[in-house]
Amino acid sequence: MFDRIALIGIGLIGSSLARVIEREKIATNVVVSTRSEKTLKRAEELRLGTHYTMDAAEAVKNADLVIISVPVGASGAVAAQIAASLKPGAIVTDVGSTKASVIRQMKPELPSNVHFIAGHPVAGTEYSGPDAGFASLFEGRWCILTPDEDTNPEALQKLSAFWTACGSDVQTMDAVHHDQVLALVSHLPQLISYNIVGTASDFETVSQADVIKYSASGFRDFTRLAASDPTMWRDVCLHNKDAILEMLARFSEDLSSMRASIRRGDGDALFELFTKTRSIRRSIIEAGQDVDTPNFGRTPHKD
Amino acid sequence: MFDRIALIGIGLIGSSLARVIEREKIATNVVVSTRSEKTLKRAEELRLGTHYTMDAAEAVKNADLVIISVPVGASGAVAAQIAASLKPGAIVTDVGSTKASVIRQMKPELPSNVHFIAGHPVAGTEYSGPDAGFASLFEGRWCILTPDEDTNPEALQKLSAFWTACGSDVQTMDAVHHDQVLALVSHLPQLISYNIVGTASDFETVSQADVIKYSASGFRDFTRLAASDPTMWRDVCLHNKDAILEMLARFSEDLSSMRASIRRGDGDALFELFTKTRSIRRSIIEAGQDVDTPNFGRTPHKD
Ligand SMILES: NC(=O)c1ccc[n+]([C@@H]2O[C@H](COP(=O)([O-])OP(=O)(O)OC[C@H]3O[C@@H](n4cnc5c(N)ncnc54)[C@H](OP(=O)(O)O)[C@@H]3O)[C@@H](O)[C@H]2O)c1
Ligand SMILES: NC(=O)c1ccc[n+]([C@@H]2O[C@H](COP(=O)([O-])OP(=O)(O)OC[C@H]3O[C@@H](n4cnc5c(N)ncnc54)[C@H](OP(=O)(O)O)[C@@H]3O)[C@@H](O)[C@H]2O)c1
Repeated sequence: MFDRIALIGIGLIGSSLARVIEREKIATNVVVSTRSEKTLKRAEELRLGTHYTMDAAEAVKNADLVIISVPVGASGAVAAQIAASLKPGAIVTDVGSTKASVIRQMKPELPSNVHFIAGHPVAGTEYSGPDAGFASLFEGRWCILTPDEDTNPEALQKLSAFWTACGSDVQTMDAVHHDQVLALVSHLPQLISYNIVGTASDFETVSQADVIKYSASGFRDFTRLAASDPTMWRDVCLHNKDAILEMLARFSEDLSSMRASIRRGDGDALFELFTKTRSIRRSIIEAGQDVDTPNFGRTPHKD
Repeated sequence: MFDRIALIGIGLIGSSLARVIEREKIATNVVVSTRSEKTLKRAEELRLGTHYTMDAAEAVKNADLVIISVPVGASGAVAAQIAASLKPGAIVTDVGSTKASVIRQMKPELPSNVHFIAGHPVAGTEYSGPDAGFASLFEGRWCILTPDEDTNPEALQKLSAFWTACGSDVQTMDAVHHDQVLALVSHLPQLISYNIVGTASDFETVSQADVIKYSASGFRDFTRLAASDPTMWRDVCLHNKDAILEMLARFSEDLSSMRASIRRGDGDALFELFTKTRSIRRSIIEAGQDVDTPNFGRTPHKD
């Protein structure tokens, strides 16, 4: 499919790409590049590529496809680093969780003779680094591409085919719309999880030991998200600020009104809210985004 | 272990008790009682007991152990209903998710010649009704009993043995402390889940279809809790009001300060918060309350 793919960044996402590219024989040569010697060495031990270098500019030479998998705040600097070494006609893409800011950072740096199309595989875990990746991460998951009016249709077609080969279902979407949707379905839940775990960690009247002991009764579900990589999420907050602040503001308003209902002892208002939220669960199950097996509160994923 | 157990309320918890009592041969006779004809009929079809009646007073006659498994707001009325028919020396208990309010409601109704000890099995799912129960629900889960200075030690011993036979690990705790701990680890996460799903359900700029489609990226995890029974949770809110309002107030304060950090673009403050929350996850895994298998965002429980 490609003669040479360069992977810039080889953490959870980059290394999952390396693994699926090998499994599906998507490229003859896979050049792995990362910032630190430690990660590069580990990638080599894991045999994630065919070539290894700490020099991103070196890595992209002659590559037909360049995939940048670094925290979104670093994408501009990486684009500047590789710009002069890119092969004319190469496709350059990324996997960042925010899109408008990545495009704003990268597009001005890149030469006009390459095809830059931003992307976001909606797939992940709470772990990071090259050991955390696995070939099936993208299987049956959405990959959102955010082309604009300058996008070459052929390059878009080729990049879509790449993600399809990785097992993803490809969707295209405007970058700003992407950032709104993800702010609501991903960034808001993530930040609420960090916040609730933060609140519980330093509550005076309830000990940490009790929080941990009885965590299976609800709290535990939030700690998984709250164990996600701090650098990645700091960057997401800084780079999708407006949409995130909008969602948090709305969440807070709704929370104030729930608190008022509890304070007033307004059982009917509470009952109504608690009923409304059930239907969306059913829709998610019908859409195949979850199954209806009950959660017994203790037996986690075994697959 | 007991000659006759009366189960008042035969939903998720009551019917799980019926099933484990049968499996473990804990009682010779199990009288099932519930408010509605429909539920009683279903309990009979499922063969959950040895006797069935819609009359709670009738049900408790000659019972050595009476277990009340109804929404916490109904426990006072049930206590009043059964009080005159209880066998002297019988143990009366409940399974409600709040404790101080249940004790306040039930204790004054019950005669002094029975042993009332309130309890709470910290085990559940998002489903309700007699079909939702299963015998292993309590296995390896905590059951909190909240005896007070009037509690007969022998009765407490017997009730503990009952829950141990059901597979639970028994803990005793002051009722007020129970309500504080559970407000933090269970009621707060539950209400935050209802709130976030509520916020997402009526957001104008992001369609319901997109919320459902991309729900696996975080949002979905909250919809399970938010599908829980509205009656049960309305009652919990009304009956553990003070502790819940305290937790929600603290959560809101913390959220305001997180919002301020995002607004200011204070990456260091965000990084610090997102780092702090990781350690509690590790403690929960070490305490055996979860495993560290990554969540691949789509394959739910199969057991
Ligand atoms: N994790 C998820 O669930 C998920 C899901 C979808 C999309 N994403 C997006 O995927 C991207 C990568 O995430 P990940 O989970 O793969 O992260 P990760 O496992 O932490 O790996 C990050 C990679 O980026 C490199 N890197 C970190 N900071 C850098 C910098 N300032 N300049 C250059 N390189 C840097 C790291 O290099 P060294 O190790 O050598 O320092 C490493 O190779 C992020 O943009 C994230 O938003 C993540
Ligand atoms: N679900 C959980 O995860 C969980 C966990 C731990 C503790 N609990 C506690 O367990 C108790 C029962 O919960 P559940 O999940 O078993 O509920 P459920 O499945 O909805 O069953 C409720 C039972 O209570 C009866 N009932 C409902 N309203 C009543 C009323 N006003 N007066 C008398 N009986 C009434 C129902 O009778 P009909 O069907 O005949 O109307 C049914 O038998 C609650 O106090 C809850 O806080 C629940």
